[in-house]
Amino acid sequence: MNTLKGNLVFGQSGGPTSVINSSAAGVFLEALEHPEIIGRVYGMRHGIEGILNDELYDITLEDKKELEYLTGTPSSILGTCRYKLADPDVDDTDYQRILEIFKKYDIRYFFYNGGNDSMDTCHKVKRYLEKNDYECRVIGIPKTVDNDLYGTDHCPGFGSAARYVATAISEVWHDTHSYHTPMAVVFECMGRHAGWLAGASALASVIERGPDLVYLPERPFDEDKMIRDAKKILKEKNIVLISVSEGIKTKDGQLVVEQLSARKTDAFGHKQLGGTAQLLAERLGEALGIKVRGIEFSLLQRSAAHCASGVDIEEALRAGREGVKAAISGTTGVMMGFERKPGQDYGVDIVHIPLEKVANTEKTVPLDWINEEGNGVTQAFIDYCLPLIGGEPKQIHENGLPRFARLKKILAK
Amino acid sequence: MNTLKGNLVFGQSGGPTSVINSSAAGVFLEALEHPEIIGRVYGMRHGIEGILNDELYDITLEDKKELEYLTGTPSSILGTCRYKLADPDVDDTDYQRILEIFKKYDIRYFFYNGGNDSMDTCHKVKRYLEKNDYECRVIGIPKTVDNDLYGTDHCPGFGSAARYVATAISEVWHDTHSYHTPMAVVFECMGRHAGWLAGASALASVIERGPDLVYLPERPFDEDKMIRDAKKILKEKNIVLISVSEGIKTKDGQLVVEQLSARKTDAFGHKQLGGTAQLLAERLGEALGIKVRGIEFSLLQRSAAHCASGVDIEEALRAGREGVKAAISGTTGVMMGFERKPGQDYGVDIVHIPLEKVANTEKTVPLDWINEEGNGVTQAFIDYCLPLIGGEPKQIHENGLPRFARLKKILAK
Repeated sequence: MNTLKGNLVFGQSGGPTSVINSSAAGVFLEALEHPEIIGRVYGMRHGIEGILNDELYDITLEDKKELEYLTGTPSSILGTCRYKLADPDVDDTDYQRILEIFKKYDIRYFFYNGGNDSMDTCHKVKRYLEKNDYECRVIGIPKTVDNDLYGTDHCPGFGSAARYVATAISEVWHDTHSYHTPMAVVFECMGRHAGWLAGASALASVIERGPDLVYLPERPFDEDKMIRDAKKILKEKNIVLISVSEGIKTKDGQLVVEQLSARKTDAFGHKQLGGTAQLLAERLGEALGIKVRGIEFSLLQRSAAHCASGVDIEEALRAGREGVKAAISGTTGVMMGFERKPGQDYGVDIVHIPLEKVANTEKTVPLDWINEEGNGVTQAFIDYCLPLIGGEPKQIHENGLPRFARLKKILAK
Repeated sequence: MNTLKGNLVFGQSGGPTSVINSSAAGVFLEALEHPEIIGRVYGMRHGIEGILNDELYDITLEDKKELEYLTGTPSSILGTCRYKLADPDVDDTDYQRILEIFKKYDIRYFFYNGGNDSMDTCHKVKRYLEKNDYECRVIGIPKTVDNDLYGTDHCPGFGSAARYVATAISEVWHDTHSYHTPMAVVFECMGRHAGWLAGASALASVIERGPDLVYLPERPFDEDKMIRDAKKILKEKNIVLISVSEGIKTKDGQLVVEQLSARKTDAFGHKQLGGTAQLLAERLGEALGIKVRGIEFSLLQRSAAHCASGVDIEEALRAGREGVKAAISGTTGVMMGFERKPGQDYGVDIVHIPLEKVANTEKTVPLDWINEEGNGVTQAFIDYCLPLIGGEPKQIHENGLPRFARLKKILAK
């Protein structure tokens, strides 16, 4: 084995999740256990921008206990960014800077935790470093509530968001059904192109009751059909719960939210704010003359660490730890992924997915996991999702409130 | 002691909470322990309407274990209603029917769980029964996330909703602060006349970080002042979180949501849907040119049993049990209330509040618990709220999802 001595830097990118900090804990705790190889461990302030701005937190100075608390702490503890690196063949200014900083801090392990774009960043950095003969092991750690990364059975962050939406909808099911007033509630889940999270809201029906209708962006959305579907259910059940992805589109490919809000331009020519849930609820109210509510899960769904999946936390942590072990053993240029073990009992193996494969591919919900009517998911979808939301969240509380990790965040000199 | 033998009926009324079923558990479990006095225990289907329609569930036929599971089950398991009884001196049709049903089922214990209106119902029923020489003990059990009932230190349901909003806001605080993009988020809490819940969102700052600005309906709301306040905070912190009651009003007494939505009438003359949070967020976006989000907690805040306060659950259960004990001992015409014990350690005694006092009084937040600027709460408010959100929720889970009580709901013949 080619032992590469040097320092490690880890960064978080894109939209936060309930468990992205669990991966941070995994990387930090594992790296700190190998001081003979990895001398110092750094965290990027606001992702790759922390490198460009020479702002690295010295994680080696943190209390181990606080690093462990990261498994109960939502959001991106180091700060996140949406900065997109240019193509190095077109403009390599940023890359020159990255190399300069890597040399300054003797970075030999580069870890980046994020979604599609982050894996693209990883891949570009790796290529540039190789071209410039700078030895550095580059590892991507997956993360996204959207669950749309290629090559992995699922993504850390998804299970927790799925558990949250399913839990919340099963609670609201009981709330709405305690009345005998006819009513429609539309829930809006994240997911611009992939309907994994809206689909996962159907998990609410496994133990309790859940949405009657579920619409994913993978199938064209037909407003009239939804109104007909809702009418049928109202006749039968008096209450209808509908779950949609924010990204549902008409058959012409137009976002439903854009189509509906265009209709609602006010007297001053301003387009109306408001999401898909509210606009669809309003349409249902007009069409069916019933009480309606639109509930957008908004930032709640990706930050609800108090309702995180224990399985998700463990896997996010493991992806971080395994990434460090793999890098120490010589692996580079891959994202840590999960492969589901065969058989009844749920379990995953860690697999390595080449970064270039992840970078430009999006994994949407298979069309045959959506029902014929296009208003629900199949048992195969449920079987896929259910194991991902199990296990209890690991949080400490003080006075009934979650107590999150408190890092000193001391900038390296 | 005058032992009154007969049957008991219990009903739930008004908006559900996370713990109203804990009070049901308290009443049912206690009543079932006195079969020599209370022969059968009934539950009203949809509150008082269940009596008017002769639809009573026979709780005596339920499994005890499922009744115990009620402590982790949100919403009103028996169904709720908003039916308002007429003044019996004006129209006693409903009361005649109630008396008829009471005689049919030999009801000698009438328990009603709800807010102001429900205590009014209780009181009217009691007066009518007395006037007609029908012996029946009438007990009110408090319930409301609004925390606005007179005579009790606080109301079951409030602590859990308070814990939920504080938890969710502290999570979203971390989410928004992981970006360096300036942003304003407006959270909307329930509370039409009383700002207890919006105030309680400030609890997020006790352990973690919470809203920068909090607006309650007890003080007139000034939009321009809010924009100035927000601007100041943005300059300092880059991100501003604002929590408001749905019922905030201008100094003319107009609801802010009505004022703002009137301005937004669309080209067809339709008023825009959408709550206070969204409309205020939109205003902030226009005024400050920053990214905004409006998050309405909607039904989530009152049904989030997965984040319930253990203290709240215990107290709701106790109010039910103590009510039954009191009634058996001869008490009637009162609501069970809480009186806080003096001293450092939190504890409550059960007190009996005459129904007529509760019926027409609303307890709003004391003005001196709101800060001078009218944009936050004082330490006295925090000290009052904090003990109410402690203790862990008692829920059983299956596959990572809450498993609620499953009652057979067999209608009595």
